[in-house]
Amino acid sequence: MESNYKSHSCGELRQTNVGETVVLNGWVQKRRDLGGLIFLDLRDRSGTVQVVCNPEVSAEAAEIADKVRNQYVLAVRGEVVDRSEETVNPKISTGKIEVFAQQVEILNESHTPPFDLTDDTEVEETTRLRYRYLDLRRPVMQKTMMLRHQAMQWVRNYLDQRGFIEVETPMLTKSTPEGARDYLVPSRVHEGEFYALPQSPQIFKQLLMVSGMERYFQIVRCFRDEDLRADRQPEFTQIDIEASFLSPETLFSMMEEMVAGLFRETIGVEVERPFRRIPYREAMERYGSDKPDLRFDMELVDLTETLRESSFKVFSSAIAKGGQVKAINVKGKADWSRKEIDEWNETAQQLGAKGLAWVTLKEEGAKGPVAKFLSEQEWHDVLKATEADTGDLLFFVADQPQKVAHILGELRVRLARELDLIPEDVYKFAWVTEFPLVSYDEEEGRYVAEHHPFTSPVEEDIPLLKTDPSKVRAMAYDMVLNGFEIGGGSQRIHRREVQEAMFNALGFTMEEAKEQFGFMMEAFEYGAPPHGGIAFGFDRLVMLLAGRTNLRETIAFPKTANATCLMTGAPSPVSQHQLDELHIARRKGNPSKK
Amino acid sequence: MESNYKSHSCGELRQTNVGETVVLNGWVQKRRDLGGLIFLDLRDRSGTVQVVCNPEVSAEAAEIADKVRNQYVLAVRGEVVDRSEETVNPKISTGKIEVFAQQVEILNESHTPPFDLTDDTEVEETTRLRYRYLDLRRPVMQKTMMLRHQAMQWVRNYLDQRGFIEVETPMLTKSTPEGARDYLVPSRVHEGEFYALPQSPQIFKQLLMVSGMERYFQIVRCFRDEDLRADRQPEFTQIDIEASFLSPETLFSMMEEMVAGLFRETIGVEVERPFRRIPYREAMERYGSDKPDLRFDMELVDLTETLRESSFKVFSSAIAKGGQVKAINVKGKADWSRKEIDEWNETAQQLGAKGLAWVTLKEEGAKGPVAKFLSEQEWHDVLKATEADTGDLLFFVADQPQKVAHILGELRVRLARELDLIPEDVYKFAWVTEFPLVSYDEEEGRYVAEHHPFTSPVEEDIPLLKTDPSKVRAMAYDMVLNGFEIGGGSQRIHRREVQEAMFNALGFTMEEAKEQFGFMMEAFEYGAPPHGGIAFGFDRLVMLLAGRTNLRETIAFPKTANATCLMTGAPSPVSQHQLDELHIARRKGNPSKK
Repeated sequence: MESNYKSHSCGELRQTNVGETVVLNGWVQKRRDLGGLIFLDLRDRSGTVQVVCNPEVSAEAAEIADKVRNQYVLAVRGEVVDRSEETVNPKISTGKIEVFAQQVEILNESHTPPFDLTDDTEVEETTRLRYRYLDLRRPVMQKTMMLRHQAMQWVRNYLDQRGFIEVETPMLTKSTPEGARDYLVPSRVHEGEFYALPQSPQIFKQLLMVSGMERYFQIVRCFRDEDLRADRQPEFTQIDIEASFLSPETLFSMMEEMVAGLFRETIGVEVERPFRRIPYREAMERYGSDKPDLRFDMELVDLTETLRESSFKVFSSAIAKGGQVKAINVKGKADWSRKEIDEWNETAQQLGAKGLAWVTLKEEGAKGPVAKFLSEQEWHDVLKATEADTGDLLFFVADQPQKVAHILGELRVRLARELDLIPEDVYKFAWVTEFPLVSYDEEEGRYVAEHHPFTSPVEEDIPLLKTDPSKVRAMAYDMVLNGFEIGGGSQRIHRREVQEAMFNALGFTMEEAKEQFGFMMEAFEYGAPPHGGIAFGFDRLVMLLAGRTNLRETIAFPKTANATCLMTGAPSPVSQHQLDELHIARRKGNPSKK
Repeated sequence: MESNYKSHSCGELRQTNVGETVVLNGWVQKRRDLGGLIFLDLRDRSGTVQVVCNPEVSAEAAEIADKVRNQYVLAVRGEVVDRSEETVNPKISTGKIEVFAQQVEILNESHTPPFDLTDDTEVEETTRLRYRYLDLRRPVMQKTMMLRHQAMQWVRNYLDQRGFIEVETPMLTKSTPEGARDYLVPSRVHEGEFYALPQSPQIFKQLLMVSGMERYFQIVRCFRDEDLRADRQPEFTQIDIEASFLSPETLFSMMEEMVAGLFRETIGVEVERPFRRIPYREAMERYGSDKPDLRFDMELVDLTETLRESSFKVFSSAIAKGGQVKAINVKGKADWSRKEIDEWNETAQQLGAKGLAWVTLKEEGAKGPVAKFLSEQEWHDVLKATEADTGDLLFFVADQPQKVAHILGELRVRLARELDLIPEDVYKFAWVTEFPLVSYDEEEGRYVAEHHPFTSPVEEDIPLLKTDPSKVRAMAYDMVLNGFEIGGGSQRIHRREVQEAMFNALGFTMEEAKEQFGFMMEAFEYGAPPHGGIAFGFDRLVMLLAGRTNLRETIAFPKTANATCLMTGAPSPVSQHQLDELHIARRKGNPSKK
C-alpha cells in the first residue's frame, strides 16, 4: 500500500464520500464470511464501517481478509460505494455505504479477547478492569472518555474567558491534621520525614489569593486514603476555583453559567437558571437531605406540633424528649399489602428507625397501627398537612430530628425510585446554603469544621463562635444536582482575628494552629483579600453527564473498592533497596490498634 | 461604599475612562504624602494606577488614606481624571490618568513585607521561597504565571482541534524497574505494599493506544526522586502526547505547528518552519551535543584524518587508540593573553580533558604548543578545514570521541557566551533524530535503554539487536531549542516479537520482562496499533518563553535543590499513628550503603 495511514475515519464516511478511494485504519469488530465474500466491520474511535472483501474486486485483499480475525488491526484501501437498498443498516451512521476493499494490510494480529468488546458485553467488572485496555475499546467507554475531555475543555475555556488562570499546585506537600487520612510519601533526602499528597489544593489556592492572582482555577488530582465506598476513589479529580474581590452572588451566577454551558455543549441539555437556593435547614426539613433530589416532590411533613399531645405514646414521648414526628405521603399506595409495608418498615429499621408507623387511607376508612390512636382534630390536621386523600399511604417516623431527616430523607428517595416517580433526562440544580460551620465530634470531644477551618461564618453569627459554635452558620454552599452534591464552596475567612476565633472554637490554641497552619496564618497578616471559591467533583459531574451510575465508568484507569489497580497490580511489593533508601522498614500489623 | 467590588481593574484604566466613576480593589504598592495630598499606587493583577486622596475631594477618604501602609488591601471609589501634562508618567500604561478618591475602604491591613515586592527586589531566593505568597505578588512573577496559563490553554486548544483527547492517568501506580528512582506511597490497605508516583504516563499512554483512543494528550505531573540539579524539580509538568495511525512526518509537522503557535500566541515570536533535522551522530560531530545551540556557528572540525600521522604525539597517539582530534576556531581571538588561554585550558580539564592544545594565528605567524609540530601539509589542511585566518585562535582536543564531543561541545557554548556570540530573542529549533537505542552500562554489566524499552528501532537495524545492540538506531527524536532539549519522543514498538528482542538485548529474560511489564506485553497481544508520541518538558518551555534562566521561576510553589518547600516546610515529620496505619517504621540511616 503506498501509504497505509488513514485518509478518513471509519465512522465519518457518508453517501457524500461515494466514489472516493479511502484508506482506513482500525480494528475488526466483526467478521462474516458469506460464501467467499468477507464482510469486516472495521471500527475506530469515530465508529464502524462495513468493508467488503470480494475476490472479484481484489483477490489479494480477499485472501488476506480470509486470515483476519476479530480485533486484528488493519489498514484498508478501498472505494466507498452505496449499499443496495435491502442491505442499508439504519442503526449505524455509516449504514448507507460500504467500502469495497482493494488492499488489506494486517498491521497487527490479536488474540481472541477474554470478553466481547461491545457495549452490551456481559462480563464481571473485575475482568473488565483487569483488561482495561480492551474494555476501553468498547464504544460506550470511548464516548465517555471523549465526553470527559470535552467537559474539561469547556470548563477551561469558560474560566479562561472569565479571567481565571490555571495555576498548578504541588503534589508533594505537607501533611495537615484536619480532614481525611493523607497518603504519605517518604523522603529519601530528609530521613524520617514525609510528604503528603494533597487532599485538595485548599491552602495553596488561598495563598494564591494572598498573592494577588485574583482568579484561579485548576483541574487537579486529589487524594484521600479513606475506606472506599462504591462512589469513592483514592485519587479523584476536582475542578478547583477561587476568586478575590468577587461577590458570592457573582460567583454563583458564573458557576451556574459554567455548569449550564457544560450541559448544553456536551449533552445538549438546557438547564434552568438561576438555580433555586435552599438553606441547609430547609433542605433537611423538607427533604431530609443536604443534597435533595428535586426531580419529585413527596416532601417530609412536620407533624410535631400537631401530635405533641397525642395519646399515641410513640409520638408524644419522642416529642417530649426533644424529638420530632414527620411523615411522607405515598400517594395512591393505600392498597399496598401488609407484606409490602413490612418491607419498608424493615428498610426504615436498617436506616436506624425504631419503627415505621403507617396509615392506609382506604375507602372503608383509615387502617394501620397509628389510626386508632389519633383524635379527630389530630386526624384532621394530619390529613391537611400531608395533603392526604383516600387511597394514600402515610409513613411516620418519630425520633430525634437528625434521625428523622436521615430515615425519611432516604425513604423518600427509595420510594420515588420504586414508584418510578423520577423523570429521566431531567436535571434539577440547586444551591444549598448556610451550612453549619462546625459540628461537635463526640469521639474527639471537640467541635470540628464541617468544611474546613478557613470557612467564613455568616457575619452576624461571628459572636456565637465564642458562646455556641454549633449555631454558627457558615458562608458555605453546595451545588446539588438530582440528589448528588456536585460542588461545594465557601467565602473564606480573610481576617486573622476571625481565623483565630475559629481555631479557638475548634479547640486549637493559637500555638497549635500556628504549628500546623503557621505559614498560612502568617500569610494572612500581609494583606489577604476578601476571597472565596468552590470545588466540583469532576468524576461525578462526568458520571451525571454520561448517564452512568458508577464513578469507575468515568475514569480511564480506576481502582477497586480496596484501592487496587487490577490491571497493573498496584500497589505491589518493592525491593528492600528501595525501602532502605527511604529510611523505612515494613512492619507487621498496626501497633496502634489494640 | 454601596458596593466595594471592583468595577474595573487598576491596569486597564485609560484616558477613555476619564469622567467615569470606578471602584478599584488592590494592594498599595507605594504611598506618598505630599503636603496633605496622599498618592497611592494601587496594584492588582492587571497593573498599577495612581489614586489621589485629596481632603478637598473627600475629607473622609483622605483621613483613611492617612492610615494606609504598603500592601494594605483597599477598595477605592473615585473619578478617573486626566493627569496634568507635567505629571504624566509614560512608563506605565495608566500614566496619563489618575483616580481622585471619593471613598477609601481598608479591606485588610498588612505587616511590612520582609522584602520589596518589586521586579528588581534584592533579596536571597530562600527568602522569596519562604514567603512565596508575597514573592508571587511581584509583577514579573504574576506575568510568568499568566504566561504559563496562556501556554497551557494554547496547547490544549491546539491539540483538541487536532482531535487529541486529554485522558487523565493514575498518580498512584506501580513501581517499575527501568528509569529513575520512584517516589513510593505505602498502602494502608495492603500491608507491605506500595504505590509509585509516575515518572511519566508512558505505559498508560501506550495502553490508551491499544484501547483505540488514537490521539491522546495530557498536561500531567510527573515525579522523579533524583538528586536535584539547579534545573530539576522532584515534581514537574509534562505535555504528554501519543498518536496511532499517524506517520512520524505528520506528527513532526503537527508538533512544529503547535510549538510555533505557542511562541506566536504567547510572546509574539514567529518561528521558522519546518525545523531543521539533525541526526544524532551529526549533532555530536558538529556541535558536540545532542541538544545543539544553533544560534551561532563555531562548529567542531574533525581533524582526525589530517593529523593521523602527525609528529605531535598527543594527537597521533590519541588517534592510534581509536580517538579523534577536533578543533574549534575562536574567530579573532589570536590576541588573547596566555593567562586567558590558560583559563580555558583549565575549564577544559575540569570538563575531563587531558589538556587543551591551541594555536594563535598572529600576524607574525602561528604560536602555541601545537604550531611547531605540524608539517606544512598538515597546517594547510588544518587551516582549510577550520577556515582559520590570521587573527584567529584554534583550540584542539584529542581523546576518545565521546570525550572530545563533551569537552569541545561545552567549550563551544561557553566561548559563545563569553564572546557574546549568542543573539538575543532568536529561537532556533531543530529535531535531533536517530538516537542510539541502547547504551552499555558498565555498572550493571548490560545494555540499558537510552529512552525506554518500548522505543522502536529503525526497521533496518532490527537484526542488529541480536548481534550488536549498540549500533541500533532508534526511531527516537528530540526537539531542541537554543541548546535545551524541550521535548523527546519516538515511534514505539507495537509488535510483540520486536519487543521481546528488545528486552532480550537489555538482558531481561521474557520471564523477567513479563514480571515487570507483564500486563503491557499482554496488552500488545490484543491488537496494538502502530503508534508513537512525544513529551515536552513544560516547565522548561515556559522558562524559555518567559526568558527566565531557572525552572523555579516558572513554578508557583517550587522546591529547593534538596527537595524542600521552604514555605510549607514539606517534607516534615508525621505522627506515629500515621506510620502505624501504613505498616511502616522509620529506620536510621540506609542499610544498603556499606
